[in-house]
Amino acid sequence: MKFTKTEQIRFKHVDFAGIVFYPRFLEMLNDLVEDWFAEALDRPFSKIHESNTGIPTVDLKVQFKKAARIGDVLTKQLWVLHLGGASVRCGFRFEDDNGKTCLEGEVTLVNVALNKATNEIKAEAFTEDTKARINKYLLA
Amino acid sequence: MKFTKTEQIRFKHVDFAGIVFYPRFLEMLNDLVEDWFAEALDRPFSKIHESNTGIPTVDLKVQFKKAARIGDVLTKQLWVLHLGGASVRCGFRFEDDNGKTCLEGEVTLVNVALNKATNEIKAEAFTEDTKARINKYLLA
Amino acid sequence: MKFTKTEQIRFKHVDFAGIVFYPRFLEMLNDLVEDWFAEALDRPFSKIHESNTGIPTVDLKVQFKKAARIGDVLTKQLWVLHLGGASVRCGFRFEDDNGKTCLEGEVTLVNVALNKATNEIKAEAFTEDTKARINKYLLA
Amino acid sequence: MKFTKTEQIRFKHVDFAGIVFYPRFLEMLNDLVEDWFAEALDRPFSKIHESNTGIPTVDLKVQFKKAARIGDVLTKQLWVLHLGGASVRCGFRFEDDNGKTCLEGEVTLVNVALNKATNEIKAEAFTEDTKARINKYLLA
Repeated sequence: MKFTKTEQIRFKHVDFAGIVFYPRFLEMLNDLVEDWFAEALDRPFSKIHESNTGIPTVDLKVQFKKAARIGDVLTKQLWVLHLGGASVRCGFRFEDDNGKTCLEGEVTLVNVALNKATNEIKAEAFTEDTKARINKYLLA
Repeated sequence: MKFTKTEQIRFKHVDFAGIVFYPRFLEMLNDLVEDWFAEALDRPFSKIHESNTGIPTVDLKVQFKKAARIGDVLTKQLWVLHLGGASVRCGFRFEDDNGKTCLEGEVTLVNVALNKATNEIKAEAFTEDTKARINKYLLA
Repeated sequence: MKFTKTEQIRFKHVDFAGIVFYPRFLEMLNDLVEDWFAEALDRPFSKIHESNTGIPTVDLKVQFKKAARIGDVLTKQLWVLHLGGASVRCGFRFEDDNGKTCLEGEVTLVNVALNKATNEIKAEAFTEDTKARINKYLLA
Repeated sequence: MKFTKTEQIRFKHVDFAGIVFYPRFLEMLNDLVEDWFAEALDRPFSKIHESNTGIPTVDLKVQFKKAARIGDVLTKQLWVLHLGGASVRCGFRFEDDNGKTCLEGEVTLVNVALNKATNEIKAEAFTEDTKARINKYLLA
C-alpha cells in the first residue's frame, strides 16, 4: 500500500526560472509525512508535540528528475522500505499529471522523546500500535 | 581548499520543538552554493539568470546528525568531489561552535541553458574558466 | 460576494511557540489571491507570467487578532473595497473553526506589465473583462 | 536613534518575475526585530522563549514602493513611534544602495507571557530596563 496525496504547484514555490525551488519540494515532502502520520498512523503532529515527542528526519536522499511549474498538480506517494525499533525508512515519489517522475528518493525518520527543560532529544521505540499501522505501507 | 561561510540560526528557521526545520537547512545550503558561485566562481546568480542559464540541483544526500537552535552560529563548508563536463558533485558539512557536525552530505548541480520561450532546460558544458575555478575546490 | 477558501495549519507554518509565524499567514494570503485570479478572474498566475504581466502587492494592512495552531482549519475570505483603473484594494479575513477572526486587513494589488529585458515594471489598466469579474466581489 | 542592519537579496527571496516575493520581506523585517531585541534590548529570542515569553506582531502596515532583485543590498532601519506598557509601535524602512525606499511601514509588537500547558497568551508589561532601552530608539 502507498500513501498518496496531491499538491498543486503555486507561485510561492517557484524561483526566478519559473520552476520549483528545491527546498520547497522538501516542505511538500514534510507535508506528506505529516498527512501520513495524521491520517494513517493516528498520530497527528499537533498531538505529537503536546506529548513532547517528535519524528525528526535524520537521512534524506533525493533525485530531482523533472522541473515542475505553477499550476502543475503533483501526485505524492510514500511507502515503507524498512521499519526499525525507533526509526522508519520510507521511499517517496512525486509525479506530474503525465505520470512522469519529478523527484524520488528515501527519507529516514526517527521517533524521539524531547525533554524541553534540558533540550535533550532521545530515540524512543514506536508503540506496537504505530508499528502495526506503519507495516501496512511496507513494500513487499 | 574548502569554501566556508557562517550563518546564525534565527527564529524563522526553527520549528515547534525549537530546532531547525530541515527544509530551512537546505535553503542555507542553497545560500552557500550561491555564495560560492558569486565569490569564488565569478558567476553571481543575478547574472546567471540574465544570461538564461542556471544550475539546478539534481541529486542530494544529507545526514542530519545534530539539532541546531536559535542563536547557534554554524560554519558551512563546501568542496568538490567530482567535476564532469556540465555537472559538479560537491561535499558539504555544517558544524556548530564546538566543531560538532549538524549535517553533512553531497549535492550535485548541473549547468543548464534555459529557453524561456519554450520552457526547455538543457545541460550545457561549463566554460574552461569556470572549470578551472571549480577545480581549486577539488578534494585531492 | 466573497471569495472563500479553507486552509489547514501545518507543522511548517508554526514557530517555537507553536503558533503561526506571521510571514506564513501572508503566504496564505498570497495563495488566496492566486486562487481568486485563477478561479474567479480567469487569470491564472501561470498565464499572467507567460504574458509578462503581474499583480504585485503595493500596500498591506493586517491586524493579527488570534493565534492559530497546527491542525486548525482556517476559512479565508476576500472581497473588493475599491476598483481603480490598474489597481484593486481588497479586504480579507481569516477565521478559525469557531468563527473567531485570526487576522483581517486590506491588501492593494496593481496590475503591471513587466519588461524582462529592461527590468521595467509599469502599471497597466485591467481589461474590461477582468474589471467586470472583479466587480462581482465589490462589497456594496 | 535608528537601529540599522543590512541584508543582501538572494535567489531564495525572489519570485518568477525576479523580484522579492513580499512575504520574504516580512521575514527580513522579523530578522530586523530579532536583531534589535538581541543587540540593543538585551533580550535575545533564544532566551525569550526559554522564559516562556514572546513578542508577537499584532499590527502591520506596509507600503511596497520599489522592487528589489538578487544581489541588491538593502539597508533596514527600525525606530520607535510609541511605547505603551506592554506594546511598542515601530516604524521601519528598507532602502536600496541608492537610498531609494523599497518598503516602509509600521509594526506593533506586544510583550506576552505564554502558558505552554494551557496555550494561553497574555499581555505582560515590559520591565523598566527593557523600557529604558526601547526609549533610546523613540523618534522625537
